[in-house]
Amino acid sequence: MDISALLTSAGINIGVCVVLLSLYSVLRKQPSNVGVYFGRRLVSVCSRPSDPFSFERFVPSPSWIVKAWETTEEEILATGGMDAAVFLRMVVFSIRIFSVAVVICFFLILPVNYHGQEMRHKRIPLESLEVFTIANVKEGSKWLWTHCLALYIITCSACILLYFEYKSIAKMRLKHITGAPPNPSHFTVLVRSIPRCSHETYSETVNKFFTKYHSSSYLSHQMVYRSGRVQKLMTNAEKMYMTFKAAAHEQNCQPSFMPRGLCGGPTKSFEIVSRETDNISGKTGFGDLDLATIRKECAAAVIFFKTRYAAVTTAEVLQSSNPMLWVSVLAPEPHDVYWSNLCIPYRQLWIRKIGTLVASIAFVLVFLIPVTFVQGLTQLDQLQQTFPFLRGLLKKKFMNQVVTGYLPSVILILALYTVPPTMMVFSAVEGSISRSGRKRSACCKVLYFTIWNVFFVNIFTGSVISQLSFFSSVKDIPAQLAKAVPRQASFFMTYVLTSGWASLSCEVMQFLALFCNLVKRFVLRIKDDSSNCTFSFPYHTEVPRVLLFGFLGFTCSILAPLMLPFLLIYFSLAYLVYKNQILNVYVPKYESEGQYWPIAHNTTIFSLVLSQIIALGVFGIKRSPVASGFTIPLIICTLLFHEYCRQRFLPIFKVVPAEVFIEMDQKDEQCGRMEEIYQKLHSAYRQFTETPHELCRSECLNHHDDGKSISDPEKLNPGKEADQLNGSSSCNLDIAETSKK
Amino acid sequence: MDISALLTSAGINIGVCVVLLSLYSVLRKQPSNVGVYFGRRLVSVCSRPSDPFSFERFVPSPSWIVKAWETTEEEILATGGMDAAVFLRMVVFSIRIFSVAVVICFFLILPVNYHGQEMRHKRIPLESLEVFTIANVKEGSKWLWTHCLALYIITCSACILLYFEYKSIAKMRLKHITGAPPNPSHFTVLVRSIPRCSHETYSETVNKFFTKYHSSSYLSHQMVYRSGRVQKLMTNAEKMYMTFKAAAHEQNCQPSFMPRGLCGGPTKSFEIVSRETDNISGKTGFGDLDLATIRKECAAAVIFFKTRYAAVTTAEVLQSSNPMLWVSVLAPEPHDVYWSNLCIPYRQLWIRKIGTLVASIAFVLVFLIPVTFVQGLTQLDQLQQTFPFLRGLLKKKFMNQVVTGYLPSVILILALYTVPPTMMVFSAVEGSISRSGRKRSACCKVLYFTIWNVFFVNIFTGSVISQLSFFSSVKDIPAQLAKAVPRQASFFMTYVLTSGWASLSCEVMQFLALFCNLVKRFVLRIKDDSSNCTFSFPYHTEVPRVLLFGFLGFTCSILAPLMLPFLLIYFSLAYLVYKNQILNVYVPKYESEGQYWPIAHNTTIFSLVLSQIIALGVFGIKRSPVASGFTIPLIICTLLFHEYCRQRFLPIFKVVPAEVFIEMDQKDEQCGRMEEIYQKLHSAYRQFTETPHELCRSECLNHHDDGKSISDPEKLNPGKEADQLNGSSSCNLDIAETSKK
Repeated sequence: MDISALLTSAGINIGVCVVLLSLYSVLRKQPSNVGVYFGRRLVSVCSRPSDPFSFERFVPSPSWIVKAWETTEEEILATGGMDAAVFLRMVVFSIRIFSVAVVICFFLILPVNYHGQEMRHKRIPLESLEVFTIANVKEGSKWLWTHCLALYIITCSACILLYFEYKSIAKMRLKHITGAPPNPSHFTVLVRSIPRCSHETYSETVNKFFTKYHSSSYLSHQMVYRSGRVQKLMTNAEKMYMTFKAAAHEQNCQPSFMPRGLCGGPTKSFEIVSRETDNISGKTGFGDLDLATIRKECAAAVIFFKTRYAAVTTAEVLQSSNPMLWVSVLAPEPHDVYWSNLCIPYRQLWIRKIGTLVASIAFVLVFLIPVTFVQGLTQLDQLQQTFPFLRGLLKKKFMNQVVTGYLPSVILILALYTVPPTMMVFSAVEGSISRSGRKRSACCKVLYFTIWNVFFVNIFTGSVISQLSFFSSVKDIPAQLAKAVPRQASFFMTYVLTSGWASLSCEVMQFLALFCNLVKRFVLRIKDDSSNCTFSFPYHTEVPRVLLFGFLGFTCSILAPLMLPFLLIYFSLAYLVYKNQILNVYVPKYESEGQYWPIAHNTTIFSLVLSQIIALGVFGIKRSPVASGFTIPLIICTLLFHEYCRQRFLPIFKVVPAEVFIEMDQKDEQCGRMEEIYQKLHSAYRQFTETPHELCRSECLNHHDDGKSISDPEKLNPGKEADQLNGSSSCNLDIAETSKK
Repeated sequence: MDISALLTSAGINIGVCVVLLSLYSVLRKQPSNVGVYFGRRLVSVCSRPSDPFSFERFVPSPSWIVKAWETTEEEILATGGMDAAVFLRMVVFSIRIFSVAVVICFFLILPVNYHGQEMRHKRIPLESLEVFTIANVKEGSKWLWTHCLALYIITCSACILLYFEYKSIAKMRLKHITGAPPNPSHFTVLVRSIPRCSHETYSETVNKFFTKYHSSSYLSHQMVYRSGRVQKLMTNAEKMYMTFKAAAHEQNCQPSFMPRGLCGGPTKSFEIVSRETDNISGKTGFGDLDLATIRKECAAAVIFFKTRYAAVTTAEVLQSSNPMLWVSVLAPEPHDVYWSNLCIPYRQLWIRKIGTLVASIAFVLVFLIPVTFVQGLTQLDQLQQTFPFLRGLLKKKFMNQVVTGYLPSVILILALYTVPPTMMVFSAVEGSISRSGRKRSACCKVLYFTIWNVFFVNIFTGSVISQLSFFSSVKDIPAQLAKAVPRQASFFMTYVLTSGWASLSCEVMQFLALFCNLVKRFVLRIKDDSSNCTFSFPYHTEVPRVLLFGFLGFTCSILAPLMLPFLLIYFSLAYLVYKNQILNVYVPKYESEGQYWPIAHNTTIFSLVLSQIIALGVFGIKRSPVASGFTIPLIICTLLFHEYCRQRFLPIFKVVPAEVFIEMDQKDEQCGRMEEIYQKLHSAYRQFTETPHELCRSECLNHHDDGKSISDPEKLNPGKEADQLNGSSSCNLDIAETSKK
């Protein structure tokens, strides 16, 4: 592939991006699309915009970009939660480090590569891409120290940035925990694998155990029930009842919004409803449930403690002399609990985990087939041999460029779309007890999958085509990588262009939601917004994507620096697009409080070390013992740095330190807020009442704004919503998420 | 090597063993050797045996064997502590499983191997050992299912035995913890990395922190001091003073024993001494120390809590929002604390651990040199080429047999003697906070070392001599192992004979101690027993040895079953010898409460899986797809079993369950024993007072027997000592241990 082919590819992509982004800036102004592009705002401010017809609506404008640019981190933290802020930090980190890399590589490495061989250079557009990679530097060149130096500078900047990011995110996390209003999950422990007693129910066993061993701190408990048919019917009935009841009571909130439980009306009327429904659920709900479900209790319970410290100690310390009984963990937040997984017997969990692992590996292996096919496409002569009728078509230069530069990546991307849902299923089967945990686990799986399938398989099938013998030689891996990576650099470059840029345009356009909206509006003729769904941010697809591009950037930076500008454009665009989406589209439903950062940190370290190993291989091939010699201490230092960070920061992301919890307890006790918290605790975890009235209540208890009618969605001020995060997260049905997958 | 060479080797070894054991049975009856062979008994019963001259003393007798055989596990538990009992369990487990293996292999596999090829058999003594290994079975043989079946039977029996052993040892551990008298270490937390405040001492910082965050359960604390010269001098002075003081006071205890602090006299007089010395240390000791050491406080402290549960929660839960500060762990037992390591700054620890790891790997690599030399000796023609003058000597058949069958192992064993002390140094440098932890860590290192250097290096250098290319091929490892292991079987057999049997004879003879004793008595003419040292059981050398032989047994069982009887003899002998040594020689100084068992369990599983992988390779080479097919599920099941055991039992060996501690707390509170325990707590951890009076006091508080004079050491009844374990452990100077290394 030469420069002109690359430029063709870039041209196509830039065109597509510009068209899509312009289209977006028009579409988002159409009132009919408010549900698609302003899902989050609709949730927090419960009224429809008015519908004035104006010419302005059909002119593309960059206002959304300006808006996204101007939003500060505090606003993001308030609207999107801490996970969103951490995600944007990842993007910002990438922008920073690749800005450094692009400067270093363009001034230091690119000239060395270009003049590496004594050859007559063609005009630059006709020059092969190979001329700009390290493959063009001749063996034993004295200029290889520049590559080594660049590697040092990039690694050091990356480590310094990583350290300060980790530190500041750890601080942010602790601040977020202490600053938030009392969180019921801090007082709550989830106990599983309660032993069965023949003469008493699980509930009695739990009560006995905790009054015996934790009498001073034990408050109460609540059993987890197997969700049988009776429960489902009752929940549905209650849901229906509440819908009508609420609709009859509510005047300030438009009725069309009610079935989704989205409302911003005055709080009082809601409090009446809530109180009434509390009575109802007291009479019909749990009173009857107890009788109906006495045989359907699971061996799991939610235990409430009097202090946060007592809860955390119970969760951390081994409870029983049989470690498979009374297994306790700190409970997830109420809306985050994945109830159906709580009933899985604890004994099955380890088998499930191993099973999922095996299934994931199997999935990776099956996935090789489309990837090798895709890889075949990049080698035209193979393709012509397989499909002889294509020969005429492929002889045309333009088609040739499209096929080599564009098509392979598109196929790969389409195949990759099946991965996240599969991994989500795996993570659910694995037995995660929280939705955020499930998403995080899926995120890791998708990440491994992506890095393996996009990078390694392409590298190895590209270089040792159809010989999967790369397993047999451990010692040669650096050298093999060093040979293969520069050769595959053009593929990765087009991958950044297609997958990266295009995915951002798709992200901003929300094709699926837009399509559903159109079908509904013009085919099914439903004018009602009621079935509009809001999504939570798809971290399990977006985090791996951003990290994959970072990974490609690090591994290719000193080998094929021409990729870096494309990458930098990608990250800058990503920054704006994701910020916009977090502000307008996605609704934070649950919070992992920054637990995505360790994943990003580890991946970055892995990328750095791999790029160093590849550089080691390259220096070996190019016979530069000095450069190789200097690379080895760099690898060791990077690993030591990683180990230090792991010791210094990781524990905070796993548990909350006792110090913090004790201080919070002491503060609450001094303020006399404990009784109030205890009362809230009892109603926080409800397995079968995620009905509209519940959602609305938690919504409205936190929303005290006046729900003005807004004429233009653009004029919504994210600053206003700063104090509305807590609670709004619950206002959405979970169907949304599964349909997104 | 043929059968007759093997028998020569066996003959030499049996001869050596019989001679040494007879010599032992004579030597142990000599009163002058009491200090060597009855160290433990001397400690617990404080008087010298009388010295009657009789002919009986010079006749070898098997009475010690009978005695060892008759001792029950309860007696071992009482005299040697739980670690000794667990160690014997390892030996018993090996006896059991190899009894099964020997039956299976001799009736099922040996005939198949022997008649594997269609060949004319020589007379059995002249038959090569290869004829009895799996190498003799021809390719594609239909009889390979017998090997597969044997593998199944051995694996299943091993897993069943392992499961019940693990279960019973876990139970024993919990019983041991609950049954023992109140242990100060359960109430104590070791805090390291206390942050430095400019305006206050560490002690004030600690006090402030714990009164702020753990006010309800915090009792008091005690700082750790850097042991400077002043402290050492003062300790020595106090030691001297106490020695004279005690000598002057004591009438019932023989003066000659005093300097060692070994005494069994009535308790009252001791209590007087103790009280007096308490006053003294109150005046001269800590009062002055506080002034002298105000600048020498370490950033570490011992914190006492009011309940065991409070201590365990503080130790388990992350304390500070900076995980590198206020690092807390449950303290080791008072005599087990490795004080000098407590002053190591916590920040260094991770670097130290990595450094030790690297150093260990380097050590393993340097060690290759003697091992390859040893391996060269087994190949006679190579030896003759290197040393031509040996040619005449080596042509003699007997010499040939000695050199091939005996010499290599002897050299290897001598080289291996340098390993345990080195590993002990590594473990100390690593920063273990307890002596038992250091020993356990050294045990693991020695284990890895031994398995790697005895098994793998021999296998690989033996088969691919001087080509260290085994790293390059991962896929071929099973096949390579399958080729190499049967070929090296004869080496392993002689290794069992020499290293195994001979090491047991050496163990029982205690050559080093005997030699020191002789030198002292006849060269230096010291008739005093005072400088006699007692050792604690060298788990770091004996556990790896027993596990190594188990490992060799598993890997060779179906490939070269002729090894099994030798192994079985080894284990039976080991059972008797170690039991005798535990009863008579070694003194339990500290207790890890069965934490050696997980090491044994993991090693056994590793051995099983490796033997299965080797079998897989063999079946592959022999072209038996059915047998290979059946082996793969066996590997998977073994790994699943391991994972299950890890989940089910391992946590109990890491921490004590809250349930157990809370019950103990409640019991003590009901009995009103808490105040008494608190008072003992304050004096339990003393860094600079391991002087004789202290040792004696702790000794005598626990010893309430009447110290009768005994005429024959044989007549000591171990049953009597059942209640004397706790406390006697302190009665020995630590020099003993270092000199043992």
